[in-house]
Amino acid sequence: MAGVSKVAPTPLLKDELDIVIPTIRNLDFLEMWRPFFEQYHLIIVQDGDPSKVIKVPEGFDYELYNRNDINRILGPKASCISFKDSACRCFGYMVSKKKYIFTIDDDCFVAKDPSGKDINALEQHIKNLLTPSTPFFFNTLYDPYREGADFVRGYPFSLREGIPTAVSHGLWLNIPDYDAPTQLVKPLERNTRFVDAVLTIPKGTLFPMCGMNLAFNRELIGPAMYFGLMGDGQPIGRYDDMWAGWCMKVICDHLGLGVKTGLPYIWHSKASNPFVNLKKEYKGIYWQEELIPFFQSATLPKDCTTVQSCYIELSKQVKAKLGKVDDYFLKLADAMVTWVEAWDELNPSGEKSVENGVVAK
Amino acid sequence: MAGVSKVAPTPLLKDELDIVIPTIRNLDFLEMWRPFFEQYHLIIVQDGDPSKVIKVPEGFDYELYNRNDINRILGPKASCISFKDSACRCFGYMVSKKKYIFTIDDDCFVAKDPSGKDINALEQHIKNLLTPSTPFFFNTLYDPYREGADFVRGYPFSLREGIPTAVSHGLWLNIPDYDAPTQLVKPLERNTRFVDAVLTIPKGTLFPMCGMNLAFNRELIGPAMYFGLMGDGQPIGRYDDMWAGWCMKVICDHLGLGVKTGLPYIWHSKASNPFVNLKKEYKGIYWQEELIPFFQSATLPKDCTTVQSCYIELSKQVKAKLGKVDDYFLKLADAMVTWVEAWDELNPSGEKSVENGVVAK
Repeated sequence: MAGVSKVAPTPLLKDELDIVIPTIRNLDFLEMWRPFFEQYHLIIVQDGDPSKVIKVPEGFDYELYNRNDINRILGPKASCISFKDSACRCFGYMVSKKKYIFTIDDDCFVAKDPSGKDINALEQHIKNLLTPSTPFFFNTLYDPYREGADFVRGYPFSLREGIPTAVSHGLWLNIPDYDAPTQLVKPLERNTRFVDAVLTIPKGTLFPMCGMNLAFNRELIGPAMYFGLMGDGQPIGRYDDMWAGWCMKVICDHLGLGVKTGLPYIWHSKASNPFVNLKKEYKGIYWQEELIPFFQSATLPKDCTTVQSCYIELSKQVKAKLGKVDDYFLKLADAMVTWVEAWDELNPSGEKSVENGVVAK
Repeated sequence: MAGVSKVAPTPLLKDELDIVIPTIRNLDFLEMWRPFFEQYHLIIVQDGDPSKVIKVPEGFDYELYNRNDINRILGPKASCISFKDSACRCFGYMVSKKKYIFTIDDDCFVAKDPSGKDINALEQHIKNLLTPSTPFFFNTLYDPYREGADFVRGYPFSLREGIPTAVSHGLWLNIPDYDAPTQLVKPLERNTRFVDAVLTIPKGTLFPMCGMNLAFNRELIGPAMYFGLMGDGQPIGRYDDMWAGWCMKVICDHLGLGVKTGLPYIWHSKASNPFVNLKKEYKGIYWQEELIPFFQSATLPKDCTTVQSCYIELSKQVKAKLGKVDDYFLKLADAMVTWVEAWDELNPSGEKSVENGVVAK
């Protein structure tokens, strides 16, 4: 062959995926992601002071929403979108018109695999989302759909087709995602272990979903990806992604959708202030002792076949059962309803019935 | 320091662990394991022709049982121990007087980690068994008790003590543990991926337990580690470890005991004949489609607080529900009872009540 083509190959799902970034600062971190993100569309959700100008490096295709935009677009329903907290990112999920979302924090950089090669996190998320999940039985060699792997002896053949994957949860090298108490106790701990695996979280099992490096199929699960009421005027922070993860997992288990965790890694550059975090978290730390049993025992009725109807049902259960824990959950339950109403307003194609992970036409 | 001590350090649990090896051949494979096994006691279960002499390399401390020994020791109850199948290994669990068992196949060799260092599989199993399990909530950074890792943000603090670990399931590099159909379809597939992780199998989730590289706490779960009726005179083979794994997991979930999988790896040297395997497996391949739902929905009554009482209760459910699948399961259910009776005869210190994973004194 004479000459090597300089044309970059079209990246996977180029026109079907939006990258959602919540931020309060200039997006210099995008420079490092340029080779991987430049051909995708970005949705930037500016938190805090809307008069501040956020600089985005040249050459990126983006739309940016600040608080004024959110208020204008949602009107009174803007109350469901958090302010001064990265929970505001879920506004980006709502205004996207794409099938897939990848969301990443602006203190996350490109990690290297053990061979020293830059990890294309987005590509791995897409692989995770485009291959099935296996939540009904555990495969000891991890993701059976990966090259060089398969289902092991004793894995029922009837379960080998798997089910559609709704969520791909990626991990972090360097600064691990610890709570404030653990940060305080282990200020120097860094995650240096590259675990070369992707696995399905089994049905009926909850996990702590972190929003730092996360992708999902918006068509399958979007309306459940609400990051709650956090930050300004709220008694709690840093539980936005956790809340979304617990709600989402209960609904995925009910609808027959899969959730994966593991690869890809990003490089998390900076630990947030543990003292500030403790102030945000401390109510969550004791509330979650009641939230986890609540979500572990939550069941949804059979006639809830859309994500929206599941989510509304869950909001009722939150109000009925968690309202006793604190009045905050009454407010949150109302905000969950507002969120779904706002979602449906901005996405008028309507609810889609999902049965065993398949979206009805 | 003048001079380096040549005295090897006392290995972990030296006097509390037996290594159980089922075999039909000379145990030359032990040469490679010498640095890791030499200070432990071996229980060799000789399968097949009892008149054959099995050679064990010099310097190992062992006891060896052939079929004549099994018949002599168990009398009529010897019927529960399989013949001409590696399922016979469970006889070794029964005659052991130690707290822990490690069992390994004689075609398994020492694997190397990615840095080229020999992996001390037994040491890793012991670490797995001596640290708690976390089956009630998934930790995304895998084993939270490992150096350099911890529970991540959002992990309930009340669950961070974990529960006692009953079983450690190790994996295999080189020849993966595939069933006959997968072996036939992918004859050249080799497992080259070293996944540097140990994780707890969540509560309520079943997995395919392989007997090739397996350790367990005999005091906590021993009587549930029955490898069933396989091989000579039976309609099925190669489901011995699977059967044990399903029964064991249901009982661990009931009693509050943990099961881990992942590290350590061994090097599995030789694929067994897929045509022979297919003959052994084919009934299992369709039976397991009914076995998995049976075990997934099996529940044990609260008053079953010993492994023995759980196992007897499970045998009744097998008889009542799986007897319809095939008469074989009626025979197997009876053998389960015989197994527990034989276990109690050889281990007269009696049943131990386990509540939330704690053995009552």
